[in-house]
Amino acid sequence: MTSLTPQQSAALIETAHALADAAGPKILRHFRRSGLSADDKSAAGAGFDPVTEADRASERAMRAVLAERRPEDAILGEEFGQQIGDSGLTWILDPIDGTRAFLAGAPTWGVLIAVADAAGPVLGVIDQPYTQERFVGGLGQALWTGPHGGGPLRVRQTTHLDEAILFSTFPEVGTPAEGAAFQRVAQEARLVRYGMDCYAYALLAAGQIDLVIEAGLHVYDIAAPLAVIEAAGGIVTNWQGGPAHQGGQVIAAATPDLHARALERLQAPLS
Amino acid sequence: MTSLTPQQSAALIETAHALADAAGPKILRHFRRSGLSADDKSAAGAGFDPVTEADRASERAMRAVLAERRPEDAILGEEFGQQIGDSGLTWILDPIDGTRAFLAGAPTWGVLIAVADAAGPVLGVIDQPYTQERFVGGLGQALWTGPHGGGPLRVRQTTHLDEAILFSTFPEVGTPAEGAAFQRVAQEARLVRYGMDCYAYALLAAGQIDLVIEAGLHVYDIAAPLAVIEAAGGIVTNWQGGPAHQGGQVIAAATPDLHARALERLQAPLS
Repeated sequence: MTSLTPQQSAALIETAHALADAAGPKILRHFRRSGLSADDKSAAGAGFDPVTEADRASERAMRAVLAERRPEDAILGEEFGQQIGDSGLTWILDPIDGTRAFLAGAPTWGVLIAVADAAGPVLGVIDQPYTQERFVGGLGQALWTGPHGGGPLRVRQTTHLDEAILFSTFPEVGTPAEGAAFQRVAQEARLVRYGMDCYAYALLAAGQIDLVIEAGLHVYDIAAPLAVIEAAGGIVTNWQGGPAHQGGQVIAAATPDLHARALERLQAPLS
Repeated sequence: MTSLTPQQSAALIETAHALADAAGPKILRHFRRSGLSADDKSAAGAGFDPVTEADRASERAMRAVLAERRPEDAILGEEFGQQIGDSGLTWILDPIDGTRAFLAGAPTWGVLIAVADAAGPVLGVIDQPYTQERFVGGLGQALWTGPHGGGPLRVRQTTHLDEAILFSTFPEVGTPAEGAAFQRVAQEARLVRYGMDCYAYALLAAGQIDLVIEAGLHVYDIAAPLAVIEAAGGIVTNWQGGPAHQGGQVIAAATPDLHARALERLQAPLS
């Protein structure tokens, strides 16, 4: 990991907050407004991947902040791609994670902001402008704020699947094989819920749930959640137990024991 | 429907707000606090039906308001059962709809408050104290308020399944046959989402989504959503097209055309 001075870390945290502050109002202007256009950017209608004006306005606003404050850093954004830099740091931006939730008017989408060095994300923010909640983790911080207060982010100490609350965004999870692997974990969990997008990762970091298992994630879907959950004491890997920051199949767990038990179920059917 | 004077209607609306105002703080005291006890009130662990201190405190607070303001009305509450009255009106209270969401820290639970006469609900409130959103419908009102403003509640004019956003709380929906019936609608819908509890009905009334289909509902799960959605111009029935206010299998739709198309799929497989 890049060695940062306290001043450098503070500047990154301050910029991350400034990005979230810039994105929120741009998005709220469009949230629950009728007449929202939803392009389908996936080829041949294979899947439903809406891009909204809000998505673009959010990322534009964040890029403008970075152009002013951090012109030397690289940027990887969902909507406008890659911009090179020479500082060794990359801002990874998902202007609206959970565009389907957004289109449905549900406040479980979020703005995802991460800073990564060559080894992966070092700071993450999950921001929900409608509910006015923000979850920040990394560079020594692990904090959330919300409309009725806030506090430290800390995973809870769940070690067994039958005590665990498990979330995924879709019940299908991914391919049929991925769905079957997920169900092997789900059938042993205390409670399974769907439909929360990035908000599920925030709930895990906040000690409210215990497992999130997803597949088919992009780099910008997982960078910020990974930093937030690790800062809260949790563990995030791919389904093979390796690094998760490139996306794909991701499992986030409150404790190493719970992680190991879930990973075992993901990897092989019990016979 | 009972004939009410404008003054009587205003008094009911005022009392409904007072109930929501009383319940919210009692619940928020427990929301996302660790050490929350979760009894299992279903027999022999068949299903996961947590009852929390928050549930009971919420209903107690609402019953105290009714005892003072409306001693002549009957009450039907999820936690403390039935109290008779002689006014012809019954308050139907679900102190926390979506206790599983509540246990997971997700802000998609709600306080459900309805007033019914012999013909069914005449006024409903769906209140989400954490996000500070309130949806009110009936007796001439159809309004929502939230942290960033509010406005009239009005369903949108979706008529075809391939334009419709469909919600249900669980992908299983109910029995295998109920699940299969749901999937016949789901496979034709534009987008299907899970996990919103009563919040989905609020989103339908607010013109954000188009269909909610559920099974196994209790009277207190559907009374308030039914009043709110009908006030917003939508239609709520059981899966046979009959009255839904007794619970069971429920379908809520934005328009009669969309309702008819979904009902057809629910009732018979396409061959």
